Amino acid sequence: MKKASSLCELGFDANGASSGFFRPVSDDATPTSHRRRLTKVSVIGAGNVGMAIAQTILTRDLADEIALVDALPDKLRGEMLDLQHAAAFLPRTRLVSDTDISITRGSDLAIVTAGARQIPGETRLDLLQRNVSLFRKIVPALAEHSPDAILLIVSNPVDILTYVAWKLSGFPVSRVIGSGTNLDSSRFRFLLAEHLDVNAQDVQAYMVGEHGDSSVAIWSTVSVAGMPVLKSLQESHSSFDEEALESIRRAVVNSAYEVISLKGYTSWAIGYSVANLVSSILRDQRRIHPVSVLATGFHGIADDHEVFLSLPARLGRGGVLGVADMELTEEEARRLRQSAKTLWENSQLLGL
Amino acid sequence: MKKASSLCELGFDANGASSGFFRPVSDDATPTSHRRRLTKVSVIGAGNVGMAIAQTILTRDLADEIALVDALPDKLRGEMLDLQHAAAFLPRTRLVSDTDISITRGSDLAIVTAGARQIPGETRLDLLQRNVSLFRKIVPALAEHSPDAILLIVSNPVDILTYVAWKLSGFPVSRVIGSGTNLDSSRFRFLLAEHLDVNAQDVQAYMVGEHGDSSVAIWSTVSVAGMPVLKSLQESHSSFDEEALESIRRAVVNSAYEVISLKGYTSWAIGYSVANLVSSILRDQRRIHPVSVLATGFHGIADDHEVFLSLPARLGRGGVLGVADMELTEEEARRLRQSAKTLWENSQLLGL
Amino acid sequence: MKKASSLCELGFDANGASSGFFRPVSDDATPTSHRRRLTKVSVIGAGNVGMAIAQTILTRDLADEIALVDALPDKLRGEMLDLQHAAAFLPRTRLVSDTDISITRGSDLAIVTAGARQIPGETRLDLLQRNVSLFRKIVPALAEHSPDAILLIVSNPVDILTYVAWKLSGFPVSRVIGSGTNLDSSRFRFLLAEHLDVNAQDVQAYMVGEHGDSSVAIWSTVSVAGMPVLKSLQESHSSFDEEALESIRRAVVNSAYEVISLKGYTSWAIGYSVANLVSSILRDQRRIHPVSVLATGFHGIADDHEVFLSLPARLGRGGVLGVADMELTEEEARRLRQSAKTLWENSQLLGL
Amino acid sequence: MKKASSLCELGFDANGASSGFFRPVSDDATPTSHRRRLTKVSVIGAGNVGMAIAQTILTRDLADEIALVDALPDKLRGEMLDLQHAAAFLPRTRLVSDTDISITRGSDLAIVTAGARQIPGETRLDLLQRNVSLFRKIVPALAEHSPDAILLIVSNPVDILTYVAWKLSGFPVSRVIGSGTNLDSSRFRFLLAEHLDVNAQDVQAYMVGEHGDSSVAIWSTVSVAGMPVLKSLQESHSSFDEEALESIRRAVVNSAYEVISLKGYTSWAIGYSVANLVSSILRDQRRIHPVSVLATGFHGIADDHEVFLSLPARLGRGGVLGVADMELTEEEARRLRQSAKTLWENSQLLGL
Repeated sequence: MKKASSLCELGFDANGASSGFFRPVSDDATPTSHRRRLTKVSVIGAGNVGMAIAQTILTRDLADEIALVDALPDKLRGEMLDLQHAAAFLPRTRLVSDTDISITRGSDLAIVTAGARQIPGETRLDLLQRNVSLFRKIVPALAEHSPDAILLIVSNPVDILTYVAWKLSGFPVSRVIGSGTNLDSSRFRFLLAEHLDVNAQDVQAYMVGEHGDSSVAIWSTVSVAGMPVLKSLQESHSSFDEEALESIRRAVVNSAYEVISLKGYTSWAIGYSVANLVSSILRDQRRIHPVSVLATGFHGIADDHEVFLSLPARLGRGGVLGVADMELTEEEARRLRQSAKTLWENSQLLGL
Repeated sequence: MKKASSLCELGFDANGASSGFFRPVSDDATPTSHRRRLTKVSVIGAGNVGMAIAQTILTRDLADEIALVDALPDKLRGEMLDLQHAAAFLPRTRLVSDTDISITRGSDLAIVTAGARQIPGETRLDLLQRNVSLFRKIVPALAEHSPDAILLIVSNPVDILTYVAWKLSGFPVSRVIGSGTNLDSSRFRFLLAEHLDVNAQDVQAYMVGEHGDSSVAIWSTVSVAGMPVLKSLQESHSSFDEEALESIRRAVVNSAYEVISLKGYTSWAIGYSVANLVSSILRDQRRIHPVSVLATGFHGIADDHEVFLSLPARLGRGGVLGVADMELTEEEARRLRQSAKTLWENSQLLGL
Repeated sequence: MKKASSLCELGFDANGASSGFFRPVSDDATPTSHRRRLTKVSVIGAGNVGMAIAQTILTRDLADEIALVDALPDKLRGEMLDLQHAAAFLPRTRLVSDTDISITRGSDLAIVTAGARQIPGETRLDLLQRNVSLFRKIVPALAEHSPDAILLIVSNPVDILTYVAWKLSGFPVSRVIGSGTNLDSSRFRFLLAEHLDVNAQDVQAYMVGEHGDSSVAIWSTVSVAGMPVLKSLQESHSSFDEEALESIRRAVVNSAYEVISLKGYTSWAIGYSVANLVSSILRDQRRIHPVSVLATGFHGIADDHEVFLSLPARLGRGGVLGVADMELTEEEARRLRQSAKTLWENSQLLGL
Repeated sequence: MKKASSLCELGFDANGASSGFFRPVSDDATPTSHRRRLTKVSVIGAGNVGMAIAQTILTRDLADEIALVDALPDKLRGEMLDLQHAAAFLPRTRLVSDTDISITRGSDLAIVTAGARQIPGETRLDLLQRNVSLFRKIVPALAEHSPDAILLIVSNPVDILTYVAWKLSGFPVSRVIGSGTNLDSSRFRFLLAEHLDVNAQDVQAYMVGEHGDSSVAIWSTVSVAGMPVLKSLQESHSSFDEEALESIRRAVVNSAYEVISLKGYTSWAIGYSVANLVSSILRDQRRIHPVSVLATGFHGIADDHEVFLSLPARLGRGGVLGVADMELTEEEARRLRQSAKTLWENSQLLGL
């Protein structure tokens, strides 16, 4: 990429060390092994979602280097410069960008937000096929340049595209994760926290299964600071019946659509949500997040169905370290199996 | 604003305390004086700049309450919901929004990013007049609802609009601040830090005067960790002459235009820049920032010219606590006075 | 306090503004109302516990001003200088100290760590009486200088001394809080997190009741990220019986004694624990913490017994905003009532 | 080390994964290469200084693993447990400790705070010889277990012991750093910031040379936010003469002794100071710090004198990336050379 505004192009040396201001303490070369210890995160797709993620990772100081990739060179360079101009207000993070995916070489974590947009009249399956084509260009290249990386898929439909990324990368399943219902669960917690006037960080509540319309709210484990609240809510509200609970679940699902209808897209919340996953992974925090993982064998999902669905997973530097075998009602498990079946049937049509 | 997705509308009580889960520890009422101690920041204008500012303030945890105001109710509500949905990943901050400016009541700090956009064929003065009209609606209302607030003006042309805000608010001059060249100076530091391969936070360098094309780069004080570097640069680069320095100044000025031409607007850097000012002000940090302040009497600016220009100012909870009487070359001072004269003449046309 | 090393004593003006380097932007006086918005925390007792608390509050940037009070002027001044010398590495926080409690004037929060040490041969009641005498000097003076403050009692025995502080302050009960079992619960969570190899922040588990030997571990609500784990643990470990659970509770209680026997005192963990409470209170976070609150009427504690015991409480800028009516087994509730009875009988001997 | 209070000893499995609560997502083994990417810091010496450093690194979240080493097993274990008990209030950091230095294996950074204490009647040289003997046990073992680590020496006399560590480690000189005058410079900045009523982070001022009585204050570069202030101070204070400046330098030097005489030791400020260096090194921040580096050839120090003295150095992941060739007055340079000569003569007596 051309760096039109750099001092070098204005006729100065590229290297401050040669300017006479600093002198090396000795002739020792810095071992290159040191440089490899720095943490690199790549974000594929510099749209609203990708940039909200990149900016939150930058503000939170979660990486030593951030690489941005996008197909549109002007937009991409504009976003990179806009972040770089804030250098005086941030810890020093190396920011690079290119339309060529080789800029991601040596990433510890690669976040894919790129995705095709639905064309009017296009079927869902056609859209999916176009996204699979896009992933065929992106994922093998990512895997080649960063064979030890963890892949975090944000593009929608996230569950099936995480499956696609797993297949195309050849990575072990513990290193391919979909953002799944992590954000849905945050929306669920926010609504409950507002109702109970507590801090949303103190609310434990899960949306699991397929990200989107058929996600499953796990009411039985809703708790505040670990104290179950469903029974208390039901006792104090005659209206807290099955139908009411389902309407809350729908409110959570609709809140994403509501934001899209109001501002045209979502960005901030997914940015914070993904940065939260990045922190757990890169700092080996071993926290539990509802993310899209290979769900085969959980809750009665058939052993020959390779599907990704969101379940509470323990994340760390190795990726998915374990998946919680949470207690579900038979109805909740049935819905999960239903989603799994549909996803499996769809994935069979992709020809991977 | 209608909160369509709240639990309350689904038939539940608004107050968790009444749900039987929490009980008050006693009948004591919480003294209302406590609530007033919480820190409230308002952001007027929920466009790209206003939202980047609001989101960075939220991530940095600089306020207990953030109020957003915009003329477009849908966009506004979408942005607020998008931030709220991240509640589980953030410290608890109260987020409110309304098209009515009374939502800002009791602000400690009000940040104005709203501004009219240039209409093709419109003169600069016509545009300014439209912005003055806009400020007539916004500023007196802000001042009425938050008589003790500090006003931070980000809308462009920032220097003259800060003057307008001062006049319309009736506030003491120490409580009306323009973001001025704080971001220009960060861009200047970034370019120098890249060249010298040091941390931009360790580079001291100022752009002062009028924000935009006629800003003045103060080369004599450029230093790294307090050590002057200009002489060193000049000795090691035969090309570090007057012309070269001016071309670097222009590169800094152009870098804003470059971002706009590439991505269509600037957002991230101004967001970090303003959040940095917010931190110094609300936490009484007494740090030095180049911001737009009443410059009358500094560097030979005429005593009867009431103009706002960026100079290094010490910021704290009381606003502008002092302005540094920095040493300028006669040429640098002359440029400042020239900008001051032009600004004063323009402001005379506004009929304030 | 003498400030032997200040520049002023070396013959320079006290005020940089008069040094000619900064000039006021105008003659406006900064309204004094602004200064009162800054957050002030006082720490009474500059021993190992008090200093670990003060230092963690400083590192976490939770206050704009910290006042330290201790009876030993040299130790006190040494601790304050040691913190001040780090100014270049910290956000600007005002640090003051004095042996006179009036230095705490205008505190938002006052933390009491001062306490008499047991003299060999002294009975527990005699020690308590000496602490009550100490509190008679401290608490009314604190209440007079900061009538709107929240009192946070850390001195031991914490439950009865929190009661004493409530009585002596005349404060509403929502504004007198004991650190109680907040740290015991953290130790409980650490042991469980190590066992389950998860992040301790994801473990919900409570020690409630009296801080110390008779604290009650609430096994029924132990959960990981909101998912109950007791049943799972019991199914997979034949040894997870009543006796085993009690031995874990004792291990938690003993871990405090273990640290004291090994290093002579505890400091770091109580420092983090109290700083965590300070954050919830001053930033109005409305999080749930097991802290010592007036427990009358909870879990069958007699209505005429005014005792403080730790229960999960929702904390915010107003102090205790509510107490969770958590479900206990009959045995757990019986133990709580037993502690309450003993505490009430002891408190009757204090002649308050 | 015995872990008396762990659940394992109470009869439970060591591994939560086997408890049935979590299941692996697959049979993939986590590649061990991932684990090596985590950042490990070792602190040798768990006294007041070592623990303040370790605790500040923990609070600032600068490492994924902290290893503590001390000769006293009880004190050491007590300190480790005290930090571990705060797990619920901190990001997950692995804490280990042992009297055996092999616990430091694979460190990215090893900080040495251990040192012998002066015995009454002992000469300075005898004390130094005892410290050299101690370093003979520590440093080669550290170098063996962490051949790629950076060594950061804090023990006093820091300049000569950094030289000793360099010789004993066989490390390249860029990877052996002494804390030097980094803290002295912070004290200098604090005094100036108080005088000028600005943020100490905005004051640039250096103490260089030998840490302790003969350190050199570089007045010519004292600046506030990059703006030189000495001339301004001298013009406004008739008393700002040579003698006054020297008395301020002595006040800075004495402030360390003052803290020691008042509280018995220093801890907090050195803790923050070293954590600040750790951040620059491990996060490759390339910031400038006055630290003890090989000063041969700088400011006329003889080419055959291998001495470590504090000079402004640019620190990053590779250690010392460069040393600033700052402008000194002839008197300042003369003092540096005098210190260098004395240090070199002393080091010749050590028989390394």
